[in-house]
Amino acid sequence: MIDTVLIWIEKNSRRWLHDLQQWLAIPSVSTDPSHVTDVHAAAEWAQFYLRTAGLDATLIPTPRHPCVLATTPAGMYPQNAPHVVIYGHYDVQPPDPLEAWSSPPFSPTINHGQIVARGASDDKGQTFCHMAALLAWREIAQQFPLRVTVLLEGEEEIGSPNLPEVIKNLKPQLSDASALIISDSSQFAPGIPAITSGLRGLIYYQLTLSGPNRDLHSGVYGGTVANPATVLCQLLGRLHDATGRVTIPGFYDDVAAVEANVRESWRKLPFSDEQFAQDVGVKKLYGEQGYSTIERRWCRPTLEINGLTAGFQGAGAKTIIPAKASAKVSMRLVPNQNPEKIKASFESYMQSMLPDGVSMQFELFGSSPAVLTATNSPAITAAINAARAGLGAEPVIIREGGSIPVVNWFRQELGLESVLLGFGLPDDNLHSPNEKLDLDGFYGGIRTSALLLDELSQALSK
Amino acid sequence: MIDTVLIWIEKNSRRWLHDLQQWLAIPSVSTDPSHVTDVHAAAEWAQFYLRTAGLDATLIPTPRHPCVLATTPAGMYPQNAPHVVIYGHYDVQPPDPLEAWSSPPFSPTINHGQIVARGASDDKGQTFCHMAALLAWREIAQQFPLRVTVLLEGEEEIGSPNLPEVIKNLKPQLSDASALIISDSSQFAPGIPAITSGLRGLIYYQLTLSGPNRDLHSGVYGGTVANPATVLCQLLGRLHDATGRVTIPGFYDDVAAVEANVRESWRKLPFSDEQFAQDVGVKKLYGEQGYSTIERRWCRPTLEINGLTAGFQGAGAKTIIPAKASAKVSMRLVPNQNPEKIKASFESYMQSMLPDGVSMQFELFGSSPAVLTATNSPAITAAINAARAGLGAEPVIIREGGSIPVVNWFRQELGLESVLLGFGLPDDNLHSPNEKLDLDGFYGGIRTSALLLDELSQALSK
Repeated sequence: MIDTVLIWIEKNSRRWLHDLQQWLAIPSVSTDPSHVTDVHAAAEWAQFYLRTAGLDATLIPTPRHPCVLATTPAGMYPQNAPHVVIYGHYDVQPPDPLEAWSSPPFSPTINHGQIVARGASDDKGQTFCHMAALLAWREIAQQFPLRVTVLLEGEEEIGSPNLPEVIKNLKPQLSDASALIISDSSQFAPGIPAITSGLRGLIYYQLTLSGPNRDLHSGVYGGTVANPATVLCQLLGRLHDATGRVTIPGFYDDVAAVEANVRESWRKLPFSDEQFAQDVGVKKLYGEQGYSTIERRWCRPTLEINGLTAGFQGAGAKTIIPAKASAKVSMRLVPNQNPEKIKASFESYMQSMLPDGVSMQFELFGSSPAVLTATNSPAITAAINAARAGLGAEPVIIREGGSIPVVNWFRQELGLESVLLGFGLPDDNLHSPNEKLDLDGFYGGIRTSALLLDELSQALSK
Repeated sequence: MIDTVLIWIEKNSRRWLHDLQQWLAIPSVSTDPSHVTDVHAAAEWAQFYLRTAGLDATLIPTPRHPCVLATTPAGMYPQNAPHVVIYGHYDVQPPDPLEAWSSPPFSPTINHGQIVARGASDDKGQTFCHMAALLAWREIAQQFPLRVTVLLEGEEEIGSPNLPEVIKNLKPQLSDASALIISDSSQFAPGIPAITSGLRGLIYYQLTLSGPNRDLHSGVYGGTVANPATVLCQLLGRLHDATGRVTIPGFYDDVAAVEANVRESWRKLPFSDEQFAQDVGVKKLYGEQGYSTIERRWCRPTLEINGLTAGFQGAGAKTIIPAKASAKVSMRLVPNQNPEKIKASFESYMQSMLPDGVSMQFELFGSSPAVLTATNSPAITAAINAARAGLGAEPVIIREGGSIPVVNWFRQELGLESVLLGFGLPDDNLHSPNEKLDLDGFYGGIRTSALLLDELSQALSK
């Protein structure tokens, strides 16, 4: 049966592309209040598509953006078949800076074997692979190889504020599930599929420093008051030492060491610092001393400034001391680091450096710990088999530097282990202009998903 | 004759206010390319007004915004009368942040004895005092007490890029002038008129740091490349030491010491740190250790960050390493500091701190040295007499923290000494929202200007 499914998937390649382009054209930017109806429209599109694939699909409202929940109707899967959950997200990052895109971010464009659009890889394109595979199984076999629940989120890019509550409420329906499939990561490189076994956590802050009650003339007042923009730079400039380490007290205290055999396996991966530097357009890479580039991405915590705003930003000159200055600052956490502990230390460290005459406000936009998943479960073996056949090469076990907090929540709430199987590539320009997904990965992803449903039905059967 | 002039000025107070409001309503923001026609309209308004006052007025085109030049026709002043130049500027600072204004910045509003509008004090309102005084002399005496040339600039707020050339070209016409009157400063306090004898210089930079070729996902790439926003903060954060001193090598080398008797005269001025802090809304003042607030404003150089721009500045969270980060940075210079030396030291200091993987661009928006003027010339004595009578109290000799580069250019090109006589107040919100001019200062300024023309005709007569 799986062979027939794969042939039908192959035959319908134009259809998959057309359908995904439709979904990508909806600007579901979750962080931007002006896109709230677009986010809803993207949820409805997914709901409709999953119904076409033969699932019962509904929207779960939340205080902000809905989740899409789709279940396999009774009779659409073999009796006593195992139950797996597929998670994905249909919201996307803001597209700015718009002028840096070669084609409009929400006019999906096929170019040199790639589909270019915001969300092409993160995560509509990868999520769609599963939706297409389900549709193919339904079309050819009139049923699925196992029981499937699809849960799509619309708030991943804003830290999933409402997902924990949604998962909690789904506990009765999902208590018998035995694996969680997530395709929101990537292959290691072209031709090297990957299972991701670790992700970094995330803490995201907006800091606002306030000084004088108005913007002041920098001639008349310069030298008499603390300048919030200067103080912001002083504080943020002290968050790293000369070796690239973060200076927040206790930041590294709980960082888990990586086992020697795992580090050894990473050293064997084909990776070139020169190629990586060339890809991002810098003369030299930079980071914490004493670790390889892969280690700095996968098992070392970081702190980055994501945005700065202060004073006059127009063309030309304006001679003011700004009344306010603000920054977006985020940290990536690694296994064993406790977000609560890090947040408390960060806030008190920043406060301790603040001079008189300036006050500071903290606004938290997200907080989640790092995750490590099993590497040798039956579900992982099934995923390795599916990826080998679907993507045509032997998969490797890697980690990634990004964050998928849902992995932890499913584990804590339901004891459910994740399988992180990505179809994209590291150079997909996630969160950047010209986000793309290679068509090889896209079609290979649909094949892999169809195979995975089959493999899991056997690997997880009781 | 002067008494009749003063009575007529008094009688026409409604007219002066009405006329100034017209001028203030034109948004002549010189730094903003979208306001270029407004700047021109403000020049034409002044040209027309000076013609009404009996002068021959023309516009002098420059590559950007025109100057207004007005001269007293032959026969409109006594033979062999001395010749004085009045300088002012009709361009204004940008009004943003707009939401902080209590009334629209270009809808001049009278409130509690103040006229509130962008440019009310800096410098349309103060310049207008001279235009009104000229009109009054012409109306009552049918001629002026001396020969006057009025030169109004439209690029003061962008560093006067074309004024030096204009002054050079006017050399033949102005070679016999014996004083330059500028009202672009302020009184020391309500009821304490002031002659300003020193101004700080200005260097204004825009710095742009460039790192990766695009905004990068801070999870995938965090820890591998130098973040331009972080580097910007590190560099700018090191420009002051813990005592508030600027760390640019050699920054203080040439700073002129202030004579003991001058410092002593400043100590006698009524000034309250508490009141000053309360006015700007900070709990505590801040600045270079070892100097009083007045000294830090008048005779100590400073460095201020005027604006910061990097990465994501919208609502919510976006997890990126920005491709670029930029800042507007300006320095106020004091007597004997050489702008060329400071610029060279600043640029090489900044470059020396730059890590691999980030490049830096400098864009210069203005550069001028500090100025000191004579305090005991016949023109200064005339100004003291005029201010005493026109503003009703004994003037003091002070300095100011702002910059008026034109003072130097007139001195260098024409050997012309300036008289800096301001009608505004220190709390006029220059460059800030709710800029204002007190009506007392406005009407007193017109009286003082009318008196000054008379005083100068006697003090400077050969």
